[in-house]
Amino acid sequence: MKVLVTGIDGYSGWPLALHLLSRGHEVVGIDNFVTRKRVNEVGSWSAVPIPSFANRQKAVRELLGKEIGFYRGDLSNYDFVHATLAREKPDAIVHLAEQRSAPYSMIDVHHAVATQVENLVGTLHILYAIRDACPKAHLVKMGTMGEYGTPNTDIPEGFFEVEFHGRKDFLPFPRQAGSWYHWSKVYDSGDVMFASKIFGIAATDVMQGVIYGIRTADMSDRRLLTRFDFDETWGTALNRFIAQAVLGLPITPYGKGEQRRGFIALEDSMQSLRLAVENPAEPGEYRVLNQFDAAYSVNELADITARVAKEFGLSPTIEHPPDPRVEAEQHYYNPLHEKLYTLGYRRSRELEEVIREIFHDLLHFRRRLEAKRHVVKPVVQWRSVDSRPSIDARAPPHAPAAPAGPSEPTSEGTSV
Amino acid sequence: MKVLVTGIDGYSGWPLALHLLSRGHEVVGIDNFVTRKRVNEVGSWSAVPIPSFANRQKAVRELLGKEIGFYRGDLSNYDFVHATLAREKPDAIVHLAEQRSAPYSMIDVHHAVATQVENLVGTLHILYAIRDACPKAHLVKMGTMGEYGTPNTDIPEGFFEVEFHGRKDFLPFPRQAGSWYHWSKVYDSGDVMFASKIFGIAATDVMQGVIYGIRTADMSDRRLLTRFDFDETWGTALNRFIAQAVLGLPITPYGKGEQRRGFIALEDSMQSLRLAVENPAEPGEYRVLNQFDAAYSVNELADITARVAKEFGLSPTIEHPPDPRVEAEQHYYNPLHEKLYTLGYRRSRELEEVIREIFHDLLHFRRRLEAKRHVVKPVVQWRSVDSRPSIDARAPPHAPAAPAGPSEPTSEGTSV
Repeated sequence: MKVLVTGIDGYSGWPLALHLLSRGHEVVGIDNFVTRKRVNEVGSWSAVPIPSFANRQKAVRELLGKEIGFYRGDLSNYDFVHATLAREKPDAIVHLAEQRSAPYSMIDVHHAVATQVENLVGTLHILYAIRDACPKAHLVKMGTMGEYGTPNTDIPEGFFEVEFHGRKDFLPFPRQAGSWYHWSKVYDSGDVMFASKIFGIAATDVMQGVIYGIRTADMSDRRLLTRFDFDETWGTALNRFIAQAVLGLPITPYGKGEQRRGFIALEDSMQSLRLAVENPAEPGEYRVLNQFDAAYSVNELADITARVAKEFGLSPTIEHPPDPRVEAEQHYYNPLHEKLYTLGYRRSRELEEVIREIFHDLLHFRRRLEAKRHVVKPVVQWRSVDSRPSIDARAPPHAPAAPAGPSEPTSEGTSV
Repeated sequence: MKVLVTGIDGYSGWPLALHLLSRGHEVVGIDNFVTRKRVNEVGSWSAVPIPSFANRQKAVRELLGKEIGFYRGDLSNYDFVHATLAREKPDAIVHLAEQRSAPYSMIDVHHAVATQVENLVGTLHILYAIRDACPKAHLVKMGTMGEYGTPNTDIPEGFFEVEFHGRKDFLPFPRQAGSWYHWSKVYDSGDVMFASKIFGIAATDVMQGVIYGIRTADMSDRRLLTRFDFDETWGTALNRFIAQAVLGLPITPYGKGEQRRGFIALEDSMQSLRLAVENPAEPGEYRVLNQFDAAYSVNELADITARVAKEFGLSPTIEHPPDPRVEAEQHYYNPLHEKLYTLGYRRSRELEEVIREIFHDLLHFRRRLEAKRHVVKPVVQWRSVDSRPSIDARAPPHAPAAPAGPSEPTSEGTSV
């Protein structure tokens, strides 16, 4: 199949491209390199040095003997989106190109607006371009398990039977997101569901659990590695915990640490996305997949991280700073995730083994962590205090958005 | 109380200003006059000639001896929103300033995007400006009953008890909107609910039924009249039916005509909004009101319109064109609306009496309808056919967005 991946330069976009290529699919990508820029904006960089996209294409050519088609452009430009889809006419589009950080969306009003506008407009443009340029293409849209929040009931896969005042219907499960970013994904889901209904688009909306991992089986060479973020804004809790342990900083689960979420290994997230692509939704079908493997609490992640850290001769400590987010620190959590298994999903990686692999790689790149150790600590606050001054305080005066120290290549011209 | 009304120049903004003034409240308004421009864009105008805003202020001064503060500006400009709220520090903000037409949002991808971006950004800006400039202000946000769609159960006021797999929670009722516009209101509701939670804002989210009516008791002079739209894009079904009868065109309920919706008289919508303002939500409370008086089917509206038309010596006919929307043409519909009554709401106007009043006024302004009779017919399609060519076909070649014939004043300099 020919698969178009939006956000192909990102943390999951790049491994997905490699995974699809290894399974014999044709891959074309779109990216605007904004993640590289935005990670620099908060003064950080990828722990793993990553080549420019041109060099990624070159590595794939030299190491795998394959070509990846690429369009540099922004989904906010409808003409670009339409022209690209019309030219490529892909069988499937995996839409990953969205602002993906909850803390980034909570920095201030402008980051909130940028997140919601960027994600909504990109998705609307993809939906209309499918209608007009490749109506048979199957859209696989990256959402998040965070759309559901943490209700005191099980969480179905998208829809459930409602009974109210003695009558029944099968309706979307209520969404209760926890950041402007997570709400933007809820809104995307509404638009994809509606477009599927009125335009007849085949759509799979992936409620993605938190992804963990630093490499996949397809990354046989360091030139094929994907990015790995560890700062407060762009790194997941687990990524930060491991970075903290490597840097000799306390591991810091927020608040009580009993917040539970669904998780999946990078390798298995790629497996799942590929299965969704290879087993498409029907025309006009809006299919929701809860794409996670197992649920863990933040405390469990911290404990496993500390245990593995000791294997590497580190001396980890755990602290519980006040939770900067507005969320339940103790709650029921039991989302269903059966559809994945009906598509053929099987777990291939275990959490502790992957954490060990991350430690191995991060210790190798330890100097890159040391150079950015100031970005691991949380400063963005969910509540009424504006977080912007704290963010700015990291950067030199009169240069609010400038990265501190060296940065990643943000254009195709530079390589590591 | 001091009340800031965004969208004060609009169909409901203007009567709300007059109603609040008559009840002794202080009123300040914001508008960018975009509705006047956009009605011109589809080649139409208000059936009722309306003065420029400067002349509206003058009329209020001369006829009522009151002042209305006014800021011309756009909610997309955060500095403007923040500065205005910081200067006025209102007790309540009634936020009506949104793109309000479902067909307009369905014209093409650009109108879909403009609608969702404009509505989301305006609301986010208001929410942050309240947090930063007037955190005690009560936000009354105009939503729509259309957010719920037409589920096969009763519709609660915002929240309901969910039971799933033997566990219970009290959750937002699932939303299933029917146009990009209606979805934008769903997304606003998510953002208001979340801001209420994290910023502690007192918020009332009004699930507004379709408003009918051409004047209120406060419009003692023709200079105080509000706008009245009858074209396919900006007029409600009832408005178009009455315009069709006046013009000797068939009355055209879409499809089977059994689509039921909640309705409320303009006078009573103003009463309800005033009651919400005078009985504010608590800080941090997100209160949802289903604000309609009674439910009617489109066929019932067509039948009453035809009956009243005959009283005026007209000879109405009824036709059923195919439904251009994607919606159930026959469905269960029973939304609750009890909270209004606990605030003291009492119906003051009856549907048939209001329809009679509209006929009276439209017959008076019949020549303004005749000049625009081509805009009453539906052309915007919800399904895969792009509606834009049909819209353009109305305008002269090479001037796609130009109004056909005379237009309303869009700036403050012109008066009727």
